[in-house]
Amino acid sequence: MSNQKHPSERPYLKTHSLQPENQETPIQFIENNHVHPKLFYRRNHFLFPQLSYSNYFLTINGYVQKPRVLSLQEIYQLPSKTIKVLLECSGNKRHFFKPKVFGEQWEKGAISQGYWTGVPLRNLLDKVGLRNGAKEVVIEGYDFGERSDLDHLYSFTRSLPLEKALHPDTLIAYEYNNEPIPFKHGYPLRLIVPQWYAMASVKWIKQITIIDKEFAGPFQSIDYVYYPNKDDNEGARPVTTINVNSTIQKPLNREILNTGKHTIKGIAWTGTGFVKKVEISTDNGDTWITANLENQDTHGYDWVNWSFEWDVTKKGEYTILSKATDSANRTQPKQPFWNRKGYGYNAIDTIHVKIE
Amino acid sequence: MSNQKHPSERPYLKTHSLQPENQETPIQFIENNHVHPKLFYRRNHFLFPQLSYSNYFLTINGYVQKPRVLSLQEIYQLPSKTIKVLLECSGNKRHFFKPKVFGEQWEKGAISQGYWTGVPLRNLLDKVGLRNGAKEVVIEGYDFGERSDLDHLYSFTRSLPLEKALHPDTLIAYEYNNEPIPFKHGYPLRLIVPQWYAMASVKWIKQITIIDKEFAGPFQSIDYVYYPNKDDNEGARPVTTINVNSTIQKPLNREILNTGKHTIKGIAWTGTGFVKKVEISTDNGDTWITANLENQDTHGYDWVNWSFEWDVTKKGEYTILSKATDSANRTQPKQPFWNRKGYGYNAIDTIHVKIE
Repeated sequence: MSNQKHPSERPYLKTHSLQPENQETPIQFIENNHVHPKLFYRRNHFLFPQLSYSNYFLTINGYVQKPRVLSLQEIYQLPSKTIKVLLECSGNKRHFFKPKVFGEQWEKGAISQGYWTGVPLRNLLDKVGLRNGAKEVVIEGYDFGERSDLDHLYSFTRSLPLEKALHPDTLIAYEYNNEPIPFKHGYPLRLIVPQWYAMASVKWIKQITIIDKEFAGPFQSIDYVYYPNKDDNEGARPVTTINVNSTIQKPLNREILNTGKHTIKGIAWTGTGFVKKVEISTDNGDTWITANLENQDTHGYDWVNWSFEWDVTKKGEYTILSKATDSANRTQPKQPFWNRKGYGYNAIDTIHVKIE
Repeated sequence: MSNQKHPSERPYLKTHSLQPENQETPIQFIENNHVHPKLFYRRNHFLFPQLSYSNYFLTINGYVQKPRVLSLQEIYQLPSKTIKVLLECSGNKRHFFKPKVFGEQWEKGAISQGYWTGVPLRNLLDKVGLRNGAKEVVIEGYDFGERSDLDHLYSFTRSLPLEKALHPDTLIAYEYNNEPIPFKHGYPLRLIVPQWYAMASVKWIKQITIIDKEFAGPFQSIDYVYYPNKDDNEGARPVTTINVNSTIQKPLNREILNTGKHTIKGIAWTGTGFVKKVEISTDNGDTWITANLENQDTHGYDWVNWSFEWDVTKKGEYTILSKATDSANRTQPKQPFWNRKGYGYNAIDTIHVKIE
C-alpha cells in the first residue's frame, strides 16, 4: 500500500425533497462568486419534464403581428449577452418564519449565482412585433403536473409585465458559466429575470405568448402571493422584486470558538439598486459596525461579499447579526414580514456562537 | 441531439462543517438498510489524519503479559465475523434541544448502519493476555489536534470497560458492506462497539493499551458527558448506551399533502435489547396506534423499519408523533433530557403536515 493522499472535504446540496427535486446550496461553504452548477440550488414544482431535443422549437405567439417558431440554432446565432445574475427562491429562509409555515423548509441556501448567457427577450419580441394593447408576456415551461389544491394538470407558467419583459437584461438564456445550462436548471432555454425572485425565471421554456390582459395561472394567482393573514386573503399582493438581504457564512451558527481573532463574513444582495452598506453587531444589536464590502458594484445583479475582523477577548455567548441596506434605502427589518406561504424572508440575519 | 434520458434525483450528505468534516446522512431518503458508504454520516473532531500504510502496524500494549505488534495481514488472517451494526453520534438531533445548545447542529441524520466485518477485540486481547488488575482498554485513533478548551494537542482516544471490550461483538473492523472501510470512516482499522453511541467506535486505530485504572482523556472526562446543568457539573455522568429512539422518514416535516391515503414510515432503534413497539399518533398524542414493524429482530444491533397507513379525510394541520419502546421497557419521553453539551436526544419524534 502506498501512502494515503490527504482526502478532500467538499460540501453538498442539502436535500429537502426528491420528487420533485428540491435541494439547497450549502451557502455557508460557497467561496467563489459563480456557484458551480453541481452546487446550484434545485427548486422544482414537478418531476423533471421529458423533452425531445431533436424537434425542439421555441414558439412565440399570441397578441403579436407575426408569430414565430425559432430553432435553437436560430437563437444561438442572434447577438447574445452574458450577465452575472443571482437567483433567489422566494421561499429562501422560509424555515425561519415564526409562526412556522408549511412548504419546503428552505434554510439559507435557496440562492445561487453565476454567469448567464443568452438573447434579450426584447430582441425576440421585436421579431414577432407586439400588437397595440399587448399587456403581458406569458412564459410556459415544459414541467407540469398535479397540484395538491386543484383538480387539473398545470404546467409551470408565469407572466411578466411588458416593462420587465422588455428590460434589456431579461434574457432567454442558454449558457450558465460558459457551458450549456445543465438540464436540471432549464436546458435548453431558461428565462432569466434579474432582480425578481426566481419563480419568474422559468426553466425549460416551451412557448412564449403575448396577452392583452392579466395572466391568472395558479403559480401567479395562488402561489407566489404574499398573504399577510393566516385565515383569509385580505391584503394579498404578488411576489416580485427581491428584498434586501444578507447571510452570515462564517462563523457557523452555534459554533464554539476560542478567544482571539475571527473573520465574520457573508454575502448581501438586493433587487433594487445595489447594496450600499452592511452592518454587523456582535452584541445582539446594541452596537453596530460597518463591514468591509469586497466587491461592491453599483450595476450588478449579484451579491456582494462582506467581512469584518472580530477580536474577541471575553468568554461567553454572543449573538451576531448582519443587516444590509440598499441604494433605495431599504434595510433588513428586525422581524420578517410574516405571510402565510412564507415568501420574501429578509429579517436581519442572526447566529449564535460561544467563546471558550 | 438525441432525446433526453430522464434525470435521476439523489440525496446528498448535509454539510455541517468541512474542517473538520461533519456531514449528516439524509436519513429521510435512506431506503435500504445498509447505508451506501457515500451517504454514511461523517463525524470528525480533527482534520483527517495522514497515515502511512506501508508501515502500518497495530500495537497492543500496557497492562498485558506479552505486548504485540500486528500487521494488517496478520489481522486479516484471523477468524472474522460480520455484523450489522448501526452507529449513532451521541449528538444526533442536538439541533432540537430547547434551550438550544452549542456544537454541531446535527438534525436527524447522525445515524447510519451497515455490515461491519472484523476480528472480535477479545480475540486480540487473548493474544496479549490481560494481567490481573486490568481494568480498561484504551483505543487511540490517528486523528489529533487542538481543542478550543485546552492548551495541548490531543489524539482522539477513548476507553472501554473490560466487560464491553470483551463482548464477542465488539470488533476491530476492516470492512464495511463487504468493501474495505472507506478512509473517511476509519480505514484501515476501526473499532465497532454495538449498542454504544459512536464516539466509542474509534476510527484509524493507532494503538490499543490496557490500563489498570480509569482513563481520563478529554474525550471521556470533558466531552461525551451528560451535564444536566447549564452552569455547573453536578450530576455529570458518561455517555455510553444508545437511548431508545425513532425517526419519521415520511411524510417530511411541513409537507403539504392531499386528503386520502398516505404511508407514514420511519425507523426505530435502541442500545438495550430490541425495539418491541412503535406507536404513532396523528393527533399530537391524544390517541396512539401501533405501527407495523417490518424487520423486527430480537438479536440485531440495527434499526427496525416501521410503517402505518394513514387515511386522512379532513383538511387541516396535523402533528404526527412516533414513539418507540424497547424490550427493557425504555420508551421515548415527551421531553428530551436536556444536557449542556446536547447528547442523547431521544424525545418522541414530531413532524407537522398540512392536508389541503
